[in-house]
Amino acid sequence: MQGERMRAAIAGASGYAGGELLRLLLGHPLEIGALTAASSAGDRLGRHQPHLPALADRVIEPTTTEVLSGHDVVFLALPHGQSAAVAAELGDNTLVVDCGADFRLARAADWAEFYGGTHAGTWPYGLPELPGQRELLRGARRIAVPGCYPTAVSLALFPAFAAGLAEPDVVVVAASGTSGAGRSPKVHLLASEVAGSVSAYGVGGVHRHTPEMEQNLSAVAGRPVRVSFTPTLAPMSRGILATCTAPATPGLTAAALREAYEAAVKDEPFLRLLPEGVWPATAMTVGANTAALQVTLDERAGRVIAVVAIDNLTKGTAGGAIQSVNLALGLAEEVGLPLNGVAP
Amino acid sequence: MQGERMRAAIAGASGYAGGELLRLLLGHPLEIGALTAASSAGDRLGRHQPHLPALADRVIEPTTTEVLSGHDVVFLALPHGQSAAVAAELGDNTLVVDCGADFRLARAADWAEFYGGTHAGTWPYGLPELPGQRELLRGARRIAVPGCYPTAVSLALFPAFAAGLAEPDVVVVAASGTSGAGRSPKVHLLASEVAGSVSAYGVGGVHRHTPEMEQNLSAVAGRPVRVSFTPTLAPMSRGILATCTAPATPGLTAAALREAYEAAVKDEPFLRLLPEGVWPATAMTVGANTAALQVTLDERAGRVIAVVAIDNLTKGTAGGAIQSVNLALGLAEEVGLPLNGVAP
Amino acid sequence: MQGERMRAAIAGASGYAGGELLRLLLGHPLEIGALTAASSAGDRLGRHQPHLPALADRVIEPTTTEVLSGHDVVFLALPHGQSAAVAAELGDNTLVVDCGADFRLARAADWAEFYGGTHAGTWPYGLPELPGQRELLRGARRIAVPGCYPTAVSLALFPAFAAGLAEPDVVVVAASGTSGAGRSPKVHLLASEVAGSVSAYGVGGVHRHTPEMEQNLSAVAGRPVRVSFTPTLAPMSRGILATCTAPATPGLTAAALREAYEAAVKDEPFLRLLPEGVWPATAMTVGANTAALQVTLDERAGRVIAVVAIDNLTKGTAGGAIQSVNLALGLAEEVGLPLNGVAP
Amino acid sequence: MQGERMRAAIAGASGYAGGELLRLLLGHPLEIGALTAASSAGDRLGRHQPHLPALADRVIEPTTTEVLSGHDVVFLALPHGQSAAVAAELGDNTLVVDCGADFRLARAADWAEFYGGTHAGTWPYGLPELPGQRELLRGARRIAVPGCYPTAVSLALFPAFAAGLAEPDVVVVAASGTSGAGRSPKVHLLASEVAGSVSAYGVGGVHRHTPEMEQNLSAVAGRPVRVSFTPTLAPMSRGILATCTAPATPGLTAAALREAYEAAVKDEPFLRLLPEGVWPATAMTVGANTAALQVTLDERAGRVIAVVAIDNLTKGTAGGAIQSVNLALGLAEEVGLPLNGVAP
Repeated sequence: MQGERMRAAIAGASGYAGGELLRLLLGHPLEIGALTAASSAGDRLGRHQPHLPALADRVIEPTTTEVLSGHDVVFLALPHGQSAAVAAELGDNTLVVDCGADFRLARAADWAEFYGGTHAGTWPYGLPELPGQRELLRGARRIAVPGCYPTAVSLALFPAFAAGLAEPDVVVVAASGTSGAGRSPKVHLLASEVAGSVSAYGVGGVHRHTPEMEQNLSAVAGRPVRVSFTPTLAPMSRGILATCTAPATPGLTAAALREAYEAAVKDEPFLRLLPEGVWPATAMTVGANTAALQVTLDERAGRVIAVVAIDNLTKGTAGGAIQSVNLALGLAEEVGLPLNGVAP
Repeated sequence: MQGERMRAAIAGASGYAGGELLRLLLGHPLEIGALTAASSAGDRLGRHQPHLPALADRVIEPTTTEVLSGHDVVFLALPHGQSAAVAAELGDNTLVVDCGADFRLARAADWAEFYGGTHAGTWPYGLPELPGQRELLRGARRIAVPGCYPTAVSLALFPAFAAGLAEPDVVVVAASGTSGAGRSPKVHLLASEVAGSVSAYGVGGVHRHTPEMEQNLSAVAGRPVRVSFTPTLAPMSRGILATCTAPATPGLTAAALREAYEAAVKDEPFLRLLPEGVWPATAMTVGANTAALQVTLDERAGRVIAVVAIDNLTKGTAGGAIQSVNLALGLAEEVGLPLNGVAP
Repeated sequence: MQGERMRAAIAGASGYAGGELLRLLLGHPLEIGALTAASSAGDRLGRHQPHLPALADRVIEPTTTEVLSGHDVVFLALPHGQSAAVAAELGDNTLVVDCGADFRLARAADWAEFYGGTHAGTWPYGLPELPGQRELLRGARRIAVPGCYPTAVSLALFPAFAAGLAEPDVVVVAASGTSGAGRSPKVHLLASEVAGSVSAYGVGGVHRHTPEMEQNLSAVAGRPVRVSFTPTLAPMSRGILATCTAPATPGLTAAALREAYEAAVKDEPFLRLLPEGVWPATAMTVGANTAALQVTLDERAGRVIAVVAIDNLTKGTAGGAIQSVNLALGLAEEVGLPLNGVAP
Repeated sequence: MQGERMRAAIAGASGYAGGELLRLLLGHPLEIGALTAASSAGDRLGRHQPHLPALADRVIEPTTTEVLSGHDVVFLALPHGQSAAVAAELGDNTLVVDCGADFRLARAADWAEFYGGTHAGTWPYGLPELPGQRELLRGARRIAVPGCYPTAVSLALFPAFAAGLAEPDVVVVAASGTSGAGRSPKVHLLASEVAGSVSAYGVGGVHRHTPEMEQNLSAVAGRPVRVSFTPTLAPMSRGILATCTAPATPGLTAAALREAYEAAVKDEPFLRLLPEGVWPATAMTVGANTAALQVTLDERAGRVIAVVAIDNLTKGTAGGAIQSVNLALGLAEEVGLPLNGVAP
């Protein structure tokens, strides 16, 4: 029955997101079809993803419609702005999954302000844990994979906003490993620069993931939520740890807060509310599709503090993408997605 | 005139703070006198501080009044709660510098809430950059060295509060290297646990440095400032990067904000306001007594965002201590304190 | 048929080797039975292995015969010297797998010299790739899991010695991540000490893995092979990179050398001879049960240079153990063992 | 007398070697003159060396004869092959210090084999610790700064060869931090690739530093020494740890070996023979101009094992350069060179 397995193509197979998609698909019922890239077309995959010996001899093809067509699923792990053209040429019956930003935002004004140029459109947003979102993904044929930071932040705060326990004035500071910045060589991403150093960047409301966070949390809260977001770069390859705070609504108790989070994660296969007093570490989630959560009420400051750890490449990109694909294809949501991580 | 040099003893010479004090004192006019410790008394210093060959053959003595007395300056890098007893036995003419927490807090209630037990008292607080503080340190014979996080956060925000540009509702998230947690072996500080992982701890208003931050910023602001503080542990040895935010006062402009910071750092030898658009990285300050600062106005969220990088062992502990000692002894404030760091 | 699954107990479940055994067994047909430990008995496993949510609520039991008996397989990840007593009380029909050193060495004199005390005995040695070794493991009920360094070095050099291409005068220098040193907190394993530092230890023929390497290579070569072994500690959690050199036999050509290695790995599921010109990196094998190999002839110096990368916790301990267990139980050798790693 | 200070220009001021030269020169009697570079000419230095606030506002000039001339000392930290042309245009009275490889090798054949093209020539070799070398550097007006690996290896083994205690068949395996590979962005130097990974490269007698090691050790031994050299890349920014072994001469005792090393380092300001049983770690030397050495006799294998740690940017490049400059200018050899490092 091998011939009847559905096949997936990966555009951008030589990058980090592409590599993680492949690692996960090797344990997933989808068959791995064409692997494509731009400048590395013609190379063996082993040259770029030497941790995946099962695919070492596969040849990377150019990213063309001809190569990508004929697959049941096409994952696009391309630079921003390239996905719309590729998707347009693939049929409506092909499940196209964009790991880039092009189709995440609902408002053209947000796109113009943060990315510039013309907004490509809006696809079903691949974060099934958000209220109501899972249903929108079942049977979908277009999926916009969330940004890694918005995944983390939305998962950390949606229980509070869904239950009306926080005021819509969010402050987030997050640390990310370098793999989130991709594989193009740049001086500030060199090991010599990053080793032993944490640095801030994109400060002051200018990071492109900001409107995406606001979009998600506003939808949950039912009113506009503003987010002050500061990303930092940490000396590690994988992982995001986001500290997300908002003023507590008057009268909120620690017990009520915890109860809301327990209820929110109860049926979620990939959300883990840690035991009280245990705080997330990114090492808890390396290679896993989980989000490790903890929440508390800072009574002194009157704030809800939620902290979340994810693997930016797994739950934050490739794993999240496959989770949504499972829903779209009618598979069990957990298929092929690791619950347990690799540590230490 | 060698015989007339003033001499300094270091209690806690086998730990990280003690090692950094020694590194700096090797380039300082103070003569290094007795080196003391508890369990490592009797060892050569080289066994514990192998990066300091100039002192390798010095023998560590026990921390007793007998050994410490007779020095002009005594640095105490001891566990919390031990400094008062030692200081009481040293004469009033001895400059006693406590790198621990015992004498930092002004209010006994804060001590009781965050440390427990009886408050030892309050000494002149060794952060010369705070308005009016420098004068209090000149000629002092007791100095409480600030905590590493309060050093970072106070330096990041005092210009805003001194100029009345921020509301007193501060949110801080900071990443620290592991050396801030000291040299006692604990599982969660093992390299295997920390490598590749950022983790949160002490969340929810319970970290002991919280009241110290509030004390400093409230004094500057002239009204109570509350701080929601979340510390995180990053996979590096040295460095703190603190992201410090507060609501902007109505009508604040980016230009006014920058102007206030420029004015605040203008005559400060160790505060560096980075060029606009450049954000701090801890690598900018490794081994240096500087604080690298940047500030911006997040107009979308209506918040002042100040980010600061320091070396927790240098400006955050040993360098800050020596800076205050320089003032107390009537030396030039910059003596023996590196302005330039070690990178990459 | 769940009731008929064979069950495995893990003694030492709160350590790094225990955690890796559990991670792999979660994807293996063996059912996970009792989890035991010494000082952490009574704790939930989630406190010690927070990366394994599937087992978070399991309670750790004390390491007693009563708890361990009744399992089909018992993995012992205990400190050296404790395995013999435990094994003696388990029946001969129980498959006992010792991840410690107690039963690795064939000669009591080697044990006495390197470990001291009385030699416990010799069990079938769990490195199936060594010539003839696979057959000895089929149906075995006792298995001595090789040391992590001997695994790496033996895999790197057995092809050369089996083919008679190298003289028996081996020099090995290897770098290991800190997880190989275990989870007991010690100062030299603190993140602050290890970050940014490579250090040597156990130099001069005194490391306990030396006689094990000599035993393996001598058996392959059919004559005594001596090994000068220098281990180093690198700032990473997982991985061993071993550079293994020996004088080339007269007349050896690069082509003949490569041919011998190609032949040696041809049918091995977990040995990967990299394409010519590509050298191993430990990142190629993180979380995978593979050994990444490369070999060359240094014609200038007349030496065979073989370099190997493994994950010390996977192929070097837990994965290697399960590979041998698969053989012992008559399962397919590859069952439950990852071929692909987690990178970057 | 400020006007009479000698001035030094640095060509390549935006790279890692240039930055380290500047860091050290800020504490050295030479006045810092022109700072030059290629693509970053016109930038402020602070953009490229943000750890050096003392020079932040200096403007980088293009690397031209016009800019460089008129200095007493010119440091060239340029890509290989560019130094000869620059040096030719500077007068014979200018002290020209080449941190590149162009003038290190004595034999044109070695140059042709390892670098290709025409050999530029041979300048006095800046490793004062080698027997007889110090005298050659006094008053020199051209200095070839040794490679970082040859510095480490030569310092580790010259005592053994000078005393005739080792056979000329050397095996070296060394780990280096990434800063040794420079600041040009390349994929394999990205933090994401390097974090958590040790990798081998340049294996099999092909690394360009090999003939330089052989040249040094052969000169000391008075007979040809061959070196099998394997470099590896470790996840850290600074530091080299080299394990250097050679067969012991017949009858060598551990005591005689140690005695030879003690004699060799006795009058050397920057060589540290560690106490017996203590092995080098790169963290012992970060930012210092020292080499930390240890040696032992592996009696089982009949080999001398010497291990050395240096900071590749300090003793391995910039510090070593300034040490030779001090000799050339008639200054005290230690001037401006840190003996103590920065740790942890």
